[in-house]
Amino acid sequence: MNKIGNYDFVTDPFHVDFNGKLMLSVLGNHCLNCAGFHATERGFGIASINEENYTWVLSRLAIELNNMPNQYEKFTVRTWVENVYRLFTNRNFAVIDKDGQTIGYARSIWAMINLNTRKPVDLLSMHGGDIANYICDEPCPIEPPSRIKVNAQDVVTALTAKYSDIDINGHVNSIRYIEHILDLFPLDIYKAKRISRFEIAYITESYYGDELSFFKEETGSNEYGIEIKKNINEVVCRAKINFES
Amino acid sequence: MNKIGNYDFVTDPFHVDFNGKLMLSVLGNHCLNCAGFHATERGFGIASINEENYTWVLSRLAIELNNMPNQYEKFTVRTWVENVYRLFTNRNFAVIDKDGQTIGYARSIWAMINLNTRKPVDLLSMHGGDIANYICDEPCPIEPPSRIKVNAQDVVTALTAKYSDIDINGHVNSIRYIEHILDLFPLDIYKAKRISRFEIAYITESYYGDELSFFKEETGSNEYGIEIKKNINEVVCRAKINFES
Repeated sequence: MNKIGNYDFVTDPFHVDFNGKLMLSVLGNHCLNCAGFHATERGFGIASINEENYTWVLSRLAIELNNMPNQYEKFTVRTWVENVYRLFTNRNFAVIDKDGQTIGYARSIWAMINLNTRKPVDLLSMHGGDIANYICDEPCPIEPPSRIKVNAQDVVTALTAKYSDIDINGHVNSIRYIEHILDLFPLDIYKAKRISRFEIAYITESYYGDELSFFKEETGSNEYGIEIKKNINEVVCRAKINFES
Repeated sequence: MNKIGNYDFVTDPFHVDFNGKLMLSVLGNHCLNCAGFHATERGFGIASINEENYTWVLSRLAIELNNMPNQYEKFTVRTWVENVYRLFTNRNFAVIDKDGQTIGYARSIWAMINLNTRKPVDLLSMHGGDIANYICDEPCPIEPPSRIKVNAQDVVTALTAKYSDIDINGHVNSIRYIEHILDLFPLDIYKAKRISRFEIAYITESYYGDELSFFKEETGSNEYGIEIKKNINEVVCRAKINFES
């Protein structure tokens, strides 16, 4: 079986922003789904590892883009495993537009945990290290996820996690955080600029009814750091966004 | 060409709620997309009528369901035109589960407007009344959208329309209202009950930065009326939700 998975999409009109471009949160959703398809087709998808009482946990995601598909345009997400370590694995993505041009890449880092103990599983011994057979040296010419630091002390906005935020595991879903983070920026910034790089590190889960506070700071030219906390000071996730004119 | 369009979907894991069931807002999204596919295939999709400076406007949507697809399950949305009048057209939907069982129906009402004047277009004279050739007497055994009245005077929640709410037309998108409405209910209601019928009437568009206030009242046993207003007293939309144990 080919080590690289290719999955085709069409840009849904309800998934584009006011510019008519696919929203980054939706692209993130597609990438995570492709991770699921690719893993499932190779025997290590969530459904099959759930039977062994394990699950995948997304730790980091970084996306870098030159462009975004327009409304109704076809695009393809390619994904492959870059490496497997004892406690985590790197999965990369490429986004290909309707003309076959690569318009972006993404990198993700995943751990597998035991559903009972919530402790990490040794990926190299799981299924005799079978996952490592899918390692592929396809290039992914973007920087790995960095260590994000946010020093902002003032809450810029707060919200309570609601019904639509919650996934089947009872957690606020990974994509919703991205949406809420993008919503911290005024429409004017999206009129003048586009997101060239977005990265997020997931630290702790949050749940229905949790009060999420958002901290935001400008960390450089066109660069912002975001931190989401719950229960006043427990960090849920951190993100870094780069805009480009 | 067959008068009925059939479109297949798979329930995306990020589109299910904590029960693992497809979210109603996402089903609404799929229905509206199918309306678009069906109309486009028959020459009256938004892209082609935009060239004539017209567009479709969704006025009402009512969805009735016995069940919802589970995560990863396939389902099909069927859609057809029930009738065409001078100023509006009715389009119906059926939702078919993976086993071929019909699990729900939806009804929608649309007008076509001139993009410059914002005035309605006469559908019976448009393209020589060609749309009427697609009228189909497929049954849709649910009540038509009703006239929704909401008397509640107290704002239960308010939010400001943000980046992710806004569609390519610069309006808060039709599906986002449904999401925000579903978020007015506590998780406990979704644990104990499911939505058996949801209807929404779209009255006025809202825009980025608009302060939306939500009014909610229990109008009967397991029945709620919702009104969304902007600028304090301009009604944006009204919804009615029925729950079932």
